[in-house]
Amino acid sequence: MVEPAVVHSSRMPLGTDYAGQPCSLARTLEIVGERWTLLIVRDLFFGVRRFSDLQRHLDIPRAVLASRLAALVEAGVVAPDPYRLTERGEELWPAVHALMQWGERNEAPGGPRRVFAHADCGTDLDAGGRCPSCGFVPHAGALVMRPGPGARPPQRDDAVSLALREPRRLLEPLL
Amino acid sequence: MVEPAVVHSSRMPLGTDYAGQPCSLARTLEIVGERWTLLIVRDLFFGVRRFSDLQRHLDIPRAVLASRLAALVEAGVVAPDPYRLTERGEELWPAVHALMQWGERNEAPGGPRRVFAHADCGTDLDAGGRCPSCGFVPHAGALVMRPGPGARPPQRDDAVSLALREPRRLLEPLL
Repeated sequence: MVEPAVVHSSRMPLGTDYAGQPCSLARTLEIVGERWTLLIVRDLFFGVRRFSDLQRHLDIPRAVLASRLAALVEAGVVAPDPYRLTERGEELWPAVHALMQWGERNEAPGGPRRVFAHADCGTDLDAGGRCPSCGFVPHAGALVMRPGPGARPPQRDDAVSLALREPRRLLEPLL
Repeated sequence: MVEPAVVHSSRMPLGTDYAGQPCSLARTLEIVGERWTLLIVRDLFFGVRRFSDLQRHLDIPRAVLASRLAALVEAGVVAPDPYRLTERGEELWPAVHALMQWGERNEAPGGPRRVFAHADCGTDLDAGGRCPSCGFVPHAGALVMRPGPGARPPQRDDAVSLALREPRRLLEPLL
């Protein structure tokens, strides 16, 4: 087998499979496991919709962003122009939230950088993404995100970074 | 900025950060976002402990596996030789489970490939990783995994693949 990290460049989009891994985790990672892809999905949950806003907020080359978005559209996770998550894409929220929570718990010494609350009742979610008041896991569109105690002093001044300093309802168009 | 998919090969392990992304999702992905890394973590949850078993089950070059394991040890997620998840590593279970569930729901036409049950009461977990009987999210070591209706006919005959055809308690040494 050829060294996958070399085969797997954005110039060779076919090298993204995990051959011989009959596992649903491998299938998911074939779709969202490329470098930057989950950060793009995160920004779509935050309500970013335009290519130029994604590009400035993520600060990645246009060609990389175009390649990742094309793969997400091809996989039915994102609808194009303005970019938005499909129903299938919105179902990624528990995974995005769980990965983020691991970082909040283990890599955020100043406390959470972002806090998510259930909009209907105003209660902050627990680490499992559940609303302790209502007793269920709200979908992403029912959440309001605000900066937490670990949010760093402003470093970036692109339009998305500025907008995310205020409480925001997820999935609502940001700009 | 240089094209990250090219910079980010296993030969240049320093290219793994997401500079300018003050976000806990980016921090998590710096640790587990490299190609193959989450499949290695998955195998450690399944109880695989030896380098040679990981290498045969994942069917990846030894150098790639060695590089990924070294990074996980460096990050405090894995303890070395025999390899096992640290407490911090075990906390990745909700994220691994959520990513797997997305694949089960969206990319497993024959039904789930793997089913997880709470060992204490024998109840299958819901999609959120919660035990419906007990009302909480059990930790990985309290789960038994078994092949589901979508498990494919046996294709692999390495020792790990054979062992995983039977119900297994997570985190118990497999071989």
